[in-house]
Amino acid sequence: MNKEIILQLINQKDFSTLKEQLHEMNPVDLATLLEALEERQLLITFRLLNKEAAAETFSYMNSLTRKLLIEGLTDQELKEVMDEMFLDDTVDIIEEMPANVVKRILKNTDEATRNSINTILNYPKDSAGSMMTIEYIHLKKDMCVSEAIERIRTEGIDKETIYTCYVTENRKLIGLVSVKDLLMSKDEDKVGDIMETNVIWTYTHEDRENVAKMFGKYDFLAIPVVDTEQYLVGIVTVDDAMDVIEEETTEDMTKMAAMSPSEESYFETSVLNHAKHRILWLLVLMLSATITGTIITTYEGAFSTIPLLVAFIPMLMDTGGNCGSQSSTLIIRGLALDEIKFKDFFKVIFKEFRISLIVSMVLATVNGLRIFLMYRDLTLAIVVGCTLVCTIVMAKVIGCILPLIAKKCKLDPAIMAAPLITTIVDTCSILVYFNIATLFFKL
Amino acid sequence: MNKEIILQLINQKDFSTLKEQLHEMNPVDLATLLEALEERQLLITFRLLNKEAAAETFSYMNSLTRKLLIEGLTDQELKEVMDEMFLDDTVDIIEEMPANVVKRILKNTDEATRNSINTILNYPKDSAGSMMTIEYIHLKKDMCVSEAIERIRTEGIDKETIYTCYVTENRKLIGLVSVKDLLMSKDEDKVGDIMETNVIWTYTHEDRENVAKMFGKYDFLAIPVVDTEQYLVGIVTVDDAMDVIEEETTEDMTKMAAMSPSEESYFETSVLNHAKHRILWLLVLMLSATITGTIITTYEGAFSTIPLLVAFIPMLMDTGGNCGSQSSTLIIRGLALDEIKFKDFFKVIFKEFRISLIVSMVLATVNGLRIFLMYRDLTLAIVVGCTLVCTIVMAKVIGCILPLIAKKCKLDPAIMAAPLITTIVDTCSILVYFNIATLFFKL
Repeated sequence: MNKEIILQLINQKDFSTLKEQLHEMNPVDLATLLEALEERQLLITFRLLNKEAAAETFSYMNSLTRKLLIEGLTDQELKEVMDEMFLDDTVDIIEEMPANVVKRILKNTDEATRNSINTILNYPKDSAGSMMTIEYIHLKKDMCVSEAIERIRTEGIDKETIYTCYVTENRKLIGLVSVKDLLMSKDEDKVGDIMETNVIWTYTHEDRENVAKMFGKYDFLAIPVVDTEQYLVGIVTVDDAMDVIEEETTEDMTKMAAMSPSEESYFETSVLNHAKHRILWLLVLMLSATITGTIITTYEGAFSTIPLLVAFIPMLMDTGGNCGSQSSTLIIRGLALDEIKFKDFFKVIFKEFRISLIVSMVLATVNGLRIFLMYRDLTLAIVVGCTLVCTIVMAKVIGCILPLIAKKCKLDPAIMAAPLITTIVDTCSILVYFNIATLFFKL
Repeated sequence: MNKEIILQLINQKDFSTLKEQLHEMNPVDLATLLEALEERQLLITFRLLNKEAAAETFSYMNSLTRKLLIEGLTDQELKEVMDEMFLDDTVDIIEEMPANVVKRILKNTDEATRNSINTILNYPKDSAGSMMTIEYIHLKKDMCVSEAIERIRTEGIDKETIYTCYVTENRKLIGLVSVKDLLMSKDEDKVGDIMETNVIWTYTHEDRENVAKMFGKYDFLAIPVVDTEQYLVGIVTVDDAMDVIEEETTEDMTKMAAMSPSEESYFETSVLNHAKHRILWLLVLMLSATITGTIITTYEGAFSTIPLLVAFIPMLMDTGGNCGSQSSTLIIRGLALDEIKFKDFFKVIFKEFRISLIVSMVLATVNGLRIFLMYRDLTLAIVVGCTLVCTIVMAKVIGCILPLIAKKCKLDPAIMAAPLITTIVDTCSILVYFNIATLFFKL
């Protein structure tokens, strides 16, 4: 099934074949396909979907196509889609729509749902509360297994996940039981006896990145969310956690390349917004780099006497930058995965120091040989070699210290990445370079 | 529960309290705790766990602790742990153990398991086959719902996931049905009538990164794996997919910082291995940077006449590098997430070109003003400004072209990142700089 076939079937008015073929598609693929259609065809095609497929497809579409649909559908149609959708998806959609569209969506949901939507919208952005759903199964501890299964069979249809059920007492979470546990138990067993009481949960205000990490660590399908009074208020499911991990990784990488992160994808972001996200850091780094330039001017005498000295500046700057970026990348990633903690401060520095000694010796030797063979100048080879060793050691140590300090200061370690470290290391290496050169060449 | 309490309870020989407290812990946390113990205490504590908890805890430990345990346990104890573990975890453990340990593990598993292990081990590393498990539930289409649920209740205990069941006919996959669908249907409904026939599956030889991406796209809990003859041979579960995404992201970031990726974590990798992973690229880039150096020497005349020209080299190099790194990072990430494809080649270049125009105009203006105010030299401000514009446009265009070309050539786009692009842009910008300077200052 592709766009051409859809258009052809619409032209032939062969809607029964089209409906049949649409029915066979996965909602995710269907969403991608519908995004490529124009408004009129989009509406025709979307109206051929059954309620369930329509709601699921809608939740996977990009915001532009969603907006086209919301504008094109009647109130009754919109209401049907909204009723069928899971609450957390509805909230996601509301968060990205303009006010007039939100008003229409809210008008077409019942009061209970509207209240739930408002509750979730009130949690801070990027919190567990804002990504949770309130549609989960809760059980009582004195139910027997057959009663519990019966409740799942009657209530489950509207729940985002039925596979982990939560046991509450006076609204407080006291245990959980998986459908697997229920099915593996005897009908007459009590839920209270088979439930897991060592429940791992999270607070509504917890950062969503930390919640997502819990999924990676514990391999759960869902994590319960409680409020400050320990009342169970919702659950977060693994599919949303995967989306968060993807977004947070992109955000980290963007920051590491000296850009402000964007919430939209590459093509969705306009040229002007791309430029805005990039200019600030570039300006800061450009102006910082002039410090290195100013230092160079004070050594005008040195490179007027030996102009060849200038030729090694790019190599020294690049190597320093690359070495610093290697260290900072590993530390930033290690911190993000909780493999490295601030308490490892000295352990990391000592490790990077030893690595930098090996790396710098090898690089200085290779480069020294090259210089000696090309210019037959032993002093020059030694000057560049010594600078290289100092630069690499400095770069690696600065590259590991800054992200760790950022973490300690509750800043995002990702900003202490290659671009910033390169600028700092440049200044240091130029200083070292001309000092060593002045010493050896008696300038 | 922490290390101190364990040690205290062991010293007091209060094993019943210790056992009770261990029983209350999550296996993931327990694994972290046991990793901190010494061999003797580790064995004592591990032996207090019941079979199920022991196997699960074992599967979450790091390889060092696992090795200690395998060496310390008797054959009978090891067999019990191995029997209880899920097959894909057993395979993961075997892959990282030395030959003599593997021999002992295989000796202590039954023949059927041994054959399954060998089958999985035979699939290429990083393929869907190597990360799958063969422990899934399969149903027949003429079963009724109550029969299907009964089969899950009897067979499910040994299966990694019971929530998606696969319907086969002559070993070929013809549909799937979730436990939710089964529970929501009437007892007398036929599996064949309620099953989903539009099944999304993957091949045993598919790259595990692509399989992991399917989970992010479709929000599945498991994906079936078929061989070249379309026979169902196993399933991949979402928890393993999350691990793969984490590993692949780390690998991408490592490559983007000019390092060979390591399979071990930061602290697990030795100083020597860290150095090995970093030296090769540093050497290549260092020697490439000498090209820029050689170019500089040909313009000795220029900067002998106007030494101030040298002062702007660091700023030009850094800005070029940062601009290139911004573009390449966004493109590499977009390619990894399938948001950008090779067919967008010209669209991307045109977008980056327009962005680079805006960015370079702003930066050149700010920098031009600064130079004019500091040195009162309009020609110098124009020379540096023009070079800046050319450098930024080049950097952004090169930064987006190289990852796209790498993708087309089936190379990993991640190697076309900041370090390599910086080196290339440096050479270009130095050439442009001295040419413009020679022109304007009539050198």
